Amino acid sequence: MKEIEYLIRDIKDFPKPGIVFKDITPLLANPEAVRFCVDEFALRIDNLRIDKIVAIEARGFFFGILLAQKLNIPFVPVRKSGKLPGKTISESYSLEYGQDRLEIHEDAISKGDLVLVHDDVLATGGTVNAVTKLINRLEGKVVAYNFLIEIEFLKGKEKLENVLLDSLFKY
Amino acid sequence: MKEIEYLIRDIKDFPKPGIVFKDITPLLANPEAVRFCVDEFALRIDNLRIDKIVAIEARGFFFGILLAQKLNIPFVPVRKSGKLPGKTISESYSLEYGQDRLEIHEDAISKGDLVLVHDDVLATGGTVNAVTKLINRLEGKVVAYNFLIEIEFLKGKEKLENVLLDSLFKY
Repeated sequence: MKEIEYLIRDIKDFPKPGIVFKDITPLLANPEAVRFCVDEFALRIDNLRIDKIVAIEARGFFFGILLAQKLNIPFVPVRKSGKLPGKTISESYSLEYGQDRLEIHEDAISKGDLVLVHDDVLATGGTVNAVTKLINRLEGKVVAYNFLIEIEFLKGKEKLENVLLDSLFKY
Repeated sequence: MKEIEYLIRDIKDFPKPGIVFKDITPLLANPEAVRFCVDEFALRIDNLRIDKIVAIEARGFFFGILLAQKLNIPFVPVRKSGKLPGKTISESYSLEYGQDRLEIHEDAISKGDLVLVHDDVLATGGTVNAVTKLINRLEGKVVAYNFLIEIEFLKGKEKLENVLLDSLFKY
């Protein structure tokens, strides 16, 4: 993992002063490292039955779709408000100033579906918590979360369901 | 291909009255169909040397990253203005009302790189044309374009470089 971690680049003061942003674009530019991460995600959920992967716009789409292909299961996107064209349900989540909404197609999850939720980064957990609510409202069940990166001091984990939560890189 | 085309769903009057939106989410929910499309993209560029795949936020990310993994080459995201954290260059493109900007990291393309540009849909060609300009400014060379869907009557093709242009589904 150490050989891959250097491909996650710190960008200071982005998106605003005082924040150190974890930039995964150097990792995306390294196909062997991408493959290693996908294999690692798959290995760590090897014992779970998962019916669908739900991933969050936009950076969650990268490893979300790759892992769905690896596991040969359906991929479901969650998008910002107004982007999904079909019938949706939505949940709000807090931004620094005000709120925004996340949406999922209401036919994307069926009753009883066992779902893995993926995003690139777990920070405060606000967006992933909203996604969990969307899945619960459609009577799916979140059985695991995984993230490329977890910012541990922000304690996002505490907002989420008490199921398997895995992140490849912790800060 | 016919067996897959039914997974592209027409949504009438999205995002506004009179438009029929091609919704690929049912395709994303079918892992065998996704794999077929990735294999088909790869097959059709079999004779080309490609160094990098550049794909456009957000729906271009799905097949862009999958094809980059299939070909074992770097993936480079182009994003809307303000999303990429490193040093970027940008190009504007026309929206229905006014303009927006697309950005690429300036270190993402090296002089002489042979680039495939991917997006989910080729419509008027405005965004893909802007991406081509970004790549040219970084002294890369676009050697192919591919799209899941091409809306032929909008003639996007005419705005692009005269290189291989491939789309799996034409309307």
